[in-house]
Amino acid sequence: MHVEIWSDISCPWCYVGKARFEKALTLFRHRDHVEVTHRSFELDPQLAHTGPTTGAAHAKKYDLTPAEARAAEENLAGIAREEGLDYLVDFRDHGNTFDLHRLLQLSAARGLHDELLTLFYQGNFAAERSIYDSEHQVEIAVRAGLDEAEIRAVLADRRAYADEVRRDEAEAAQLGITGVPFFVIDRKYGVSGAQSVEAFSEVLRRAWAERQPVLTVLGTDDRAGCDAHGCETPRGWSTGEPRTPGI
Amino acid sequence: MHVEIWSDISCPWCYVGKARFEKALTLFRHRDHVEVTHRSFELDPQLAHTGPTTGAAHAKKYDLTPAEARAAEENLAGIAREEGLDYLVDFRDHGNTFDLHRLLQLSAARGLHDELLTLFYQGNFAAERSIYDSEHQVEIAVRAGLDEAEIRAVLADRRAYADEVRRDEAEAAQLGITGVPFFVIDRKYGVSGAQSVEAFSEVLRRAWAERQPVLTVLGTDDRAGCDAHGCETPRGWSTGEPRTPGI
Repeated sequence: MHVEIWSDISCPWCYVGKARFEKALTLFRHRDHVEVTHRSFELDPQLAHTGPTTGAAHAKKYDLTPAEARAAEENLAGIAREEGLDYLVDFRDHGNTFDLHRLLQLSAARGLHDELLTLFYQGNFAAERSIYDSEHQVEIAVRAGLDEAEIRAVLADRRAYADEVRRDEAEAAQLGITGVPFFVIDRKYGVSGAQSVEAFSEVLRRAWAERQPVLTVLGTDDRAGCDAHGCETPRGWSTGEPRTPGI
Repeated sequence: MHVEIWSDISCPWCYVGKARFEKALTLFRHRDHVEVTHRSFELDPQLAHTGPTTGAAHAKKYDLTPAEARAAEENLAGIAREEGLDYLVDFRDHGNTFDLHRLLQLSAARGLHDELLTLFYQGNFAAERSIYDSEHQVEIAVRAGLDEAEIRAVLADRRAYADEVRRDEAEAAQLGITGVPFFVIDRKYGVSGAQSVEAFSEVLRRAWAERQPVLTVLGTDDRAGCDAHGCETPRGWSTGEPRTPGI
């Protein structure tokens, strides 16, 4: 089963949702048959780095008093901590996540995607330092296991892994995804938001039960393959090119 | 779209099929939306390393004269060369591929799966040296970009990445796959054997056209997510745990 998760580093519900989904996955008996792919999604591609204004920005955006905005953040921090996640209400910057996503795509190419994603979330929500500071990004990516020279080369070239980010975002648009976190199972079910562990468990069970159990197999009559008994029809090798199956 | 390819290093049709599939993929206009995962399949898990007996083994297995067996190999070499692949009729050993698959699983974890698979095929079909020689395996894996100490540690411990190989093989059994190469598209279509480039192209087009375009989205009424306008309902944060969707 293939689960794709679109998310953005600046999204607190993505941070929470990842932890809840992973709990559900740990409890899922077919977990060894589930492959997870993380996908890029920028909540605000136009955003410039605006500094440590989260509280003020929230207050303005939602027409809250600063005290109300802080209370909302405190509440979200409580929800995150219930999932065992560190969460600092202060110290969080707001900024453009494109470079973070490019580095995540590099980490995917190096088999370190989950490691880097986890550390980037921690770097944004639980560190007293801005995640938009590129030296902070380098430090975190090295900690995830990436090569420092390669990290710096990617950061220095805005085109590096940009196509991969755009491709994920184009796929999200194609699937009608406008917010994150968004979970897609076998391109059949979508789950929007940081649902509860129970809800994720239920979706996993349901998708598993409804997996198409039988493949439509094309091209069996002229296999050009090998099995436990050997390679198909050695005399057939003399016939050259295998026939195109009737599809 | 997700394409999974089950194959074994000792399988000449897998070598040919990989090249043909990749040609079809290069020609496919939606190729940027196709993800390929290689899966382990041992044609003969019980096999011991039996030395350079390919020709004799073939002759015996298919009740051919040595001349006929050689002619069959020459023919297959011709088919491989048509795909631009190097292929030596002599110098090929026959043996157990479990270690090769474990190293391939390591390479998958390091984002180097395709690199190593390509080099292992070349090492088996186009090198004047046995692929079952572990020093040859180390050299090839280093060339693919893996860390030498890590390669040697995996080779020294037969349990390393063994579960990953067995998981792929269990999935193959579940899908009814008994021979390789076997191509599975979105767990919906299966293609058996090294079909022609045209046949692969047709399957890719057909699977693309029939992709389920609309997701069944669960849990939209209480999203606990973020979108371009911000994170859902800051006042909602005060409500604590988001509701379990009605699934």
